[in-house]
Amino acid sequence: MKKVAKGKQQMEILSTIDIRSSVAVYVQIENHVQFAIASGRLKAGDQLPSVRELSERLDINPNTVAKSYRDLEVMGLVYTRRGMGVYINKGIESKCREECRRRIIIRMHEVVAEAKASGMTSKEIVEIAEKSLHSDTGPYSSPPASLTALARKKRAVK
Amino acid sequence: MKKVAKGKQQMEILSTIDIRSSVAVYVQIENHVQFAIASGRLKAGDQLPSVRELSERLDINPNTVAKSYRDLEVMGLVYTRRGMGVYINKGIESKCREECRRRIIIRMHEVVAEAKASGMTSKEIVEIAEKSLHSDTGPYSSPPASLTALARKKRAVK
Repeated sequence: MKKVAKGKQQMEILSTIDIRSSVAVYVQIENHVQFAIASGRLKAGDQLPSVRELSERLDINPNTVAKSYRDLEVMGLVYTRRGMGVYINKGIESKCREECRRRIIIRMHEVVAEAKASGMTSKEIVEIAEKSLHSDTGPYSSPPASLTALARKKRAVK
Repeated sequence: MKKVAKGKQQMEILSTIDIRSSVAVYVQIENHVQFAIASGRLKAGDQLPSVRELSERLDINPNTVAKSYRDLEVMGLVYTRRGMGVYINKGIESKCREECRRRIIIRMHEVVAEAKASGMTSKEIVEIAEKSLHSDTGPYSSPPASLTALARKKRAVK
């Protein structure tokens, strides 16, 4: 019973894929697996959903899922047991965690610097970050309307 | 005299291009021009540096600059006066501003949601955003060491 419940959870992690996003689906799958390892939701020895299961669930081409799994294997994050499935590797958690944090810091710095260059105030930038923190929308789905409404805000009169 | 000073300022806006960034140089140029219009640093009628000037200054291929200027023209943000130069279009400021803000909101939401999925706490995410706010590094350059050091932070004991 426990195994079924676990498989379900693994599927949940990967079900926030958004096929309408501008981020390629195979990249979304790779990122979600990395985030789940970094956060401890996927642990060494955990099995990923099979290519067929995941492609049916997300209604995408099996080759897309296969590409993500191949890439993750090249990165050393997963291994394949022939005829059995794809599993999370041992001893990769802290490296994966640091790599995720490093990428997030670079991207956060980039978007904040872009916002400053666009003339947004510190107050506006912090407001957008905080509204994003309180949203439950996945990273590759459209942000909630309360957030996108801020785009139409008029320039503050100085 | 005023014209020279203005041309210099335009050049400044575009001199934060970082050729070591993973963001393509032509995209950086396009983004910087859009941010400068959005923030009011570039106004209708302002002239962009010539393709030759900018490519020499940044030590990049003139075709790269030409591609950016062509893209910006297709977007309707600039126009070319043959034999004269490339100028910022009229009546585009508020549209450009809204478009920049919209993109920044989508990307901020994306990076915050990624950080949450990676197991970062709200406190850590706000800390990275605030440290980024206080940094003067351009969007496509490496973040300062004080920021990247946060990547190696150990998981908080709960």
